[in-house]
Amino acid sequence: MITRDDCQKLDDADVLAPLREEFTLNDNEIYLDGNSLGPVSASVRRRVNEVLDDEWGRGLVRSWNDAGWMGEPTRLGNRLAPLIGAQPGEVLVADTLTFLIAKLIGAALEQRPERHVVLTDAANFHSDIYIIEAMCERAGRPVTMKTIDRDRLDEELNDDVALVELTHVDYRTGESLDMAGITERVHAAGALMLWDFAHSAGAVPLDVTGANVDFAAGCGYKYLNGGPGAPAFLYVRKSWQGKLRNPLPGWLGHARPFDFELTYEPAEGVQAFVTSSPSIIALAALDGALDIWERTSMEEVRAKSLAMTDLFIQLVEERLPGVFEVVTPRDHAKRGSQVALRHPEGYAIIQSLIERGVIGDFRSPDICRFGFTPLYLRFVDVFDAVERIASVMESASFRDQRFAVRNAVT
Amino acid sequence: MITRDDCQKLDDADVLAPLREEFTLNDNEIYLDGNSLGPVSASVRRRVNEVLDDEWGRGLVRSWNDAGWMGEPTRLGNRLAPLIGAQPGEVLVADTLTFLIAKLIGAALEQRPERHVVLTDAANFHSDIYIIEAMCERAGRPVTMKTIDRDRLDEELNDDVALVELTHVDYRTGESLDMAGITERVHAAGALMLWDFAHSAGAVPLDVTGANVDFAAGCGYKYLNGGPGAPAFLYVRKSWQGKLRNPLPGWLGHARPFDFELTYEPAEGVQAFVTSSPSIIALAALDGALDIWERTSMEEVRAKSLAMTDLFIQLVEERLPGVFEVVTPRDHAKRGSQVALRHPEGYAIIQSLIERGVIGDFRSPDICRFGFTPLYLRFVDVFDAVERIASVMESASFRDQRFAVRNAVT
Repeated sequence: MITRDDCQKLDDADVLAPLREEFTLNDNEIYLDGNSLGPVSASVRRRVNEVLDDEWGRGLVRSWNDAGWMGEPTRLGNRLAPLIGAQPGEVLVADTLTFLIAKLIGAALEQRPERHVVLTDAANFHSDIYIIEAMCERAGRPVTMKTIDRDRLDEELNDDVALVELTHVDYRTGESLDMAGITERVHAAGALMLWDFAHSAGAVPLDVTGANVDFAAGCGYKYLNGGPGAPAFLYVRKSWQGKLRNPLPGWLGHARPFDFELTYEPAEGVQAFVTSSPSIIALAALDGALDIWERTSMEEVRAKSLAMTDLFIQLVEERLPGVFEVVTPRDHAKRGSQVALRHPEGYAIIQSLIERGVIGDFRSPDICRFGFTPLYLRFVDVFDAVERIASVMESASFRDQRFAVRNAVT
Repeated sequence: MITRDDCQKLDDADVLAPLREEFTLNDNEIYLDGNSLGPVSASVRRRVNEVLDDEWGRGLVRSWNDAGWMGEPTRLGNRLAPLIGAQPGEVLVADTLTFLIAKLIGAALEQRPERHVVLTDAANFHSDIYIIEAMCERAGRPVTMKTIDRDRLDEELNDDVALVELTHVDYRTGESLDMAGITERVHAAGALMLWDFAHSAGAVPLDVTGANVDFAAGCGYKYLNGGPGAPAFLYVRKSWQGKLRNPLPGWLGHARPFDFELTYEPAEGVQAFVTSSPSIIALAALDGALDIWERTSMEEVRAKSLAMTDLFIQLVEERLPGVFEVVTPRDHAKRGSQVALRHPEGYAIIQSLIERGVIGDFRSPDICRFGFTPLYLRFVDVFDAVERIASVMESASFRDQRFAVRNAVT
């Protein structure tokens, strides 16, 4: 069985270990909820206060030009682009994920005017489903959203499908989909592909260029650690730029925003998908959070992520055999950076864990989610988390659940 | 003629004078651009860092509940409501102004299904016009945006007009429209009224309840000093709530956001107009900025604003007779909190003024804008600003403009 010493040795050899000190974490707390909200880092604090004190404080309105605020959505987009395998000029950062998906749905549907169906996953995050449906209703022609079992996508693809929208890593199960393969099959059916990277960006290596993805969007507050409600990001492949209309246009996406023209003329490139002034303070937080990626790579992060999720699954099965169903795929190719454990008492288990300083979360009806973020978590944290899970399962409140908890090997 | 001593006496008697120390302003600079971007205040810095250090830093994901993040859009809406004469539960803060206008246009058009026209002002801010047009196009029936001369509104109102959208204070001229009178005439024609308060909120007293306004939206970064690209606010009169659909729905506007239901069911009240997680850091900045209103009222601010704009106009006419056309109405009832001066060399004049530490801005083709924000400006600032304008007009670069500059009385 795996010991805590084994885990300590893994930490001693971990090239990412020094990054932990950049983050603010509570003593004696193991934070396994970075898949919901990443923690604050020193560079976030520094960058936000630089905007407050210098750019806004001293530069005031001049900073729209002098500090480059006008270009922040695309500058941050270019900083973020390598994390998803995009090229410079293909990504922007602004708004929230739901608005960015709205823009991409509206723009995409105009590119397949003869088709009337948008396919999405019945297990998708609900906000995606609400906005897809709303934008279908406003497409200017009859367009229907169809929610399907994603494993039956191939059977649902036909020449009436305009667009497929899928979340790349399932927010409940942590299953990662085959981006390249699915995109290829969607294209073969003549449809377009929009990926939601909410649980992928910063979590798993992504190659939108290699996978020939049309459109994507993701959020800044999970594995990118940009803060609660951080601005989201949008990807539009270069070959689509100039051909699409932003369905929610605003002055900052105009070719000449300061000419105050009454006729909308889109800016060149991905800038056309900017609507109006995003919060510069919110962008600054995400900007600071992206600094960490100058000290590592998605490849290093992925290697540690897989080692951590493997370790967690192994420890759970050693210490708590048969107690939980491990919902997350064991196949590395199908795994995001979280592990989902199914248990009928999941809600109560998570509440007890939080009281004992292991922060995971619960997703209805029976999923305990644990996110593993290699930038600030240690292998001993994984060990200690499983010890505390075992301790919770041994406690009085779960005695009526029949299972065996093995003794820890420390 | 008015002397600097006269102005100093006004400052000595000014009840708002102590508020100035809350704001960060540059030495020897007179900031007359708060109508574009208000300055940072101590309470903004304090509140943003409280979120970074405590709520996000220590509370992490728990703060969505424990620190009340889930309720921030409506809590801040309730804080802001008195500034526009709204009741608790009628205002929310989130997103950007353009998105909020999009939501209100979409929702309003469904309430007048037999009508096909949206009227707006040809002098409106261009972003309003772009988004109105975009939402008309997606109304699900033929709806046309018609841009009109707002002074001819009565002639344009007929039984095909579904909605009128007007910006209450003109961003170029500073003219303030008759909110109650126009709203009444729009209602008499059977249409609905949406006001844009971008240049009104925090600048002039507003009474949406008394004026029976249907919908309104405004921005947080001008006279509300919430920071560059601050979240915007939306007003929906109580009697409309529950009857409208949010055309850009998201999970935070759902009745049960954590039930992850695939069918959208709107939350009660104005919460239904929230889409997805707004930036909590951006909201914190606006929250801090609103603290100043606990120490004053719109009535006090309005009285000083009118005194300052009166003073500025008088000084400009005394010192620079015939040099500028004063575009802003002299009638107090028609004046916002800025003064617009027309001059064919307006662009160069503003550039020279900025070099001399008077920060105004230019709006094409020939408008010099000067915003007067009583929370942090002094009457001597008004005097000194006009002195520097006179100095610029006397300088070599403007010698070819024929005019007389009278000697200052200091």
